[in-house]
Amino acid sequence: MTGDSSRAFVPGHVTGFFSVHEADDPEQAGSRGAGLTLSEGVTVEVEPAAETSMQLNDEPAAVEAVTRVLSDLGVEARVTATTDLPVGAGFGVSGAAALGTALAANRSFECGRSENELVAIAHAAEVEAGTGLGDVVAQARGGVPVRLDPGAPEYGRMDGVPARTRVEYLTLGERSTSEVLAGNTDRLSEVGVDKLVRLVEEPTLPTLMAASREFAREADLLTPEIAGVLSEVEEAGGEAAMAMLGETVFALGNGLSRAGYDPETCETHPSGATLKMD
Amino acid sequence: MTGDSSRAFVPGHVTGFFSVHEADDPEQAGSRGAGLTLSEGVTVEVEPAAETSMQLNDEPAAVEAVTRVLSDLGVEARVTATTDLPVGAGFGVSGAAALGTALAANRSFECGRSENELVAIAHAAEVEAGTGLGDVVAQARGGVPVRLDPGAPEYGRMDGVPARTRVEYLTLGERSTSEVLAGNTDRLSEVGVDKLVRLVEEPTLPTLMAASREFAREADLLTPEIAGVLSEVEEAGGEAAMAMLGETVFALGNGLSRAGYDPETCETHPSGATLKMD
Repeated sequence: MTGDSSRAFVPGHVTGFFSVHEADDPEQAGSRGAGLTLSEGVTVEVEPAAETSMQLNDEPAAVEAVTRVLSDLGVEARVTATTDLPVGAGFGVSGAAALGTALAANRSFECGRSENELVAIAHAAEVEAGTGLGDVVAQARGGVPVRLDPGAPEYGRMDGVPARTRVEYLTLGERSTSEVLAGNTDRLSEVGVDKLVRLVEEPTLPTLMAASREFAREADLLTPEIAGVLSEVEEAGGEAAMAMLGETVFALGNGLSRAGYDPETCETHPSGATLKMD
Repeated sequence: MTGDSSRAFVPGHVTGFFSVHEADDPEQAGSRGAGLTLSEGVTVEVEPAAETSMQLNDEPAAVEAVTRVLSDLGVEARVTATTDLPVGAGFGVSGAAALGTALAANRSFECGRSENELVAIAHAAEVEAGTGLGDVVAQARGGVPVRLDPGAPEYGRMDGVPARTRVEYLTLGERSTSEVLAGNTDRLSEVGVDKLVRLVEEPTLPTLMAASREFAREADLLTPEIAGVLSEVEEAGGEAAMAMLGETVFALGNGLSRAGYDPETCETHPSGATLKMD
C-alpha cells in the first residue's frame, strides 16, 4: 500500500480548564485539564510527494506541528487538511492536523508505529511548536476527556466524563495559544489544578462547565465580550464556558441559541481520532 | 434525569491471543493480548425497576457480570440487551453487556462515576464471574486494542494497532470461556506473552493475524474444524484466525467469502463503548 494516499479524521477539542506542566522531554511535557471533543473536526489526507507541502481548506498553510510529524516519521508528503471549525479560536485545529497527519502517514508509508507511538509523535510536535499542550491526547481519546496527568500516552494518564451531548459554539475572534503559553502561567496552573480536583470528585458535565467558568474568571482569561455571552446563557438557564485558548464560547444543548445567539451546532465525538476506511 | 432509561452501545471483541494474569484484586487481574473490536456489538438499555431483571434478545437471561455491576452501583434495574452477535462464541457478549450496563446505569441513576471507574466495575464483574479477562477494557477502547498490561484502567496499560478494516466471521459452535480459564493456563500464557512481544515490535494487522494463528496452534486451542477453515482461507490468499475463546473464525477483508464460506460481515469499530444520545 506504500505510495497510496490515506485519510484520517480527528475531532475538534475545546478545553474548559487546564494547568501547564513543563518538561525537557516534549513527550513528558503537557497539560492537565478537561474539555469536550467535537463531532466537527479536521479531515487530513496524506499523499507521498517529492517535497512536503500542506494545504488547509484549499489554501497553502504552514502548520509547524504537521511538518514536525512528517519529519519525525522521515517522510515527505502532500498534506491536505479540511475543516469547518474556526482556525485559531481554541478548537485544537493544529493538534488535529498533526495527529491526523501521523495516523494517515503511518498507513501510507507503512511506518509500522503503534497508536500510542503516533499520538506521542503528534503530541511532541505540538509541544515543540508551542501551539498546544493537551489537545492531541484528548483528540486521540474522544468523548469528554479528562487529562489526569500530562504528556504522551506513555507518561500521561486519562479518564473521561461518561456523557454525550449536543454542543453549540460561537467564535468572536482569534487568540494566539502560543502567546498565552509563553507568558507566566503559574497562577493559571494553580487554578487549573484546583478545578481538576473538583471534576475528579464529581465527573459530570455540569461540574465540568461550572469548573471551566470559574477557571476562566479566576485565571484572568475572560474577556468582557466572552463574559457578556456567558452571563446571557446563564440567565437563559443554560450552561456555557470559554474555550481555552480562543475567543470562543461553547454551550451544552441549546444554551447559546436559547439566549438568542446564532451558534454553530455539533455534538461530543464518541470515538476520538480514526483512520478513514480505504 | 434519575429514573429515566438510558442506552449504551458496546462493540463486540474477538481476541486473537492472550495470557492470563491472576491477582486477588479483580481490578488487577486480567489478561494481556490483542484482538479486534467489531462494529457489531451489544445495545444495552437500563431502566430503573423495583427488582433487577435481564433480557438478552427478548429472552430472560442471567449474565452474572451484569447483576454484579448493578449490585456494585447499588441499584436495581431492568436490563435489556440486544445483539446480532452469536452468544458464547468468543465475541465478548458478556463483557459488552456488563460495560453497557455500567455506562447506562450510571446515567440513569446519576451515579457520578468516571469512565475509568465504570470500566473498572465492569471489568471486575467479568473477572469475578469468570466469563472474561480482557474484553471489557478492549471494548472500552475500540479499534484494534493491544492489552500491554492486565487489569482495569488504573492498573492496565493499552495501545492499539492503527488500522481499520472490513471483518468477516463464521461461528461453528459454542465453547465455554470459564471452562478453559478454569484449567491450567500456564502454557497458554507463555505462548500468549511471546506473541504480544512480537506484535509490539510490529504493530500491524498482518502481524496480529499471524501471531493469533500461531497462538491457537501452539497453545493447543485449535479444533480440527477451525484448523480446516483457517487452511482454506490461507489457500485462497486470505488472513484469518480463531476467536479466543469460541468456535469462531474471523478474517480480514473478504478472506472467508473468497474461500467459499458464507460469513457474517462487519468492520473494526472505531470508537469503543459509548452512551447513545438521549
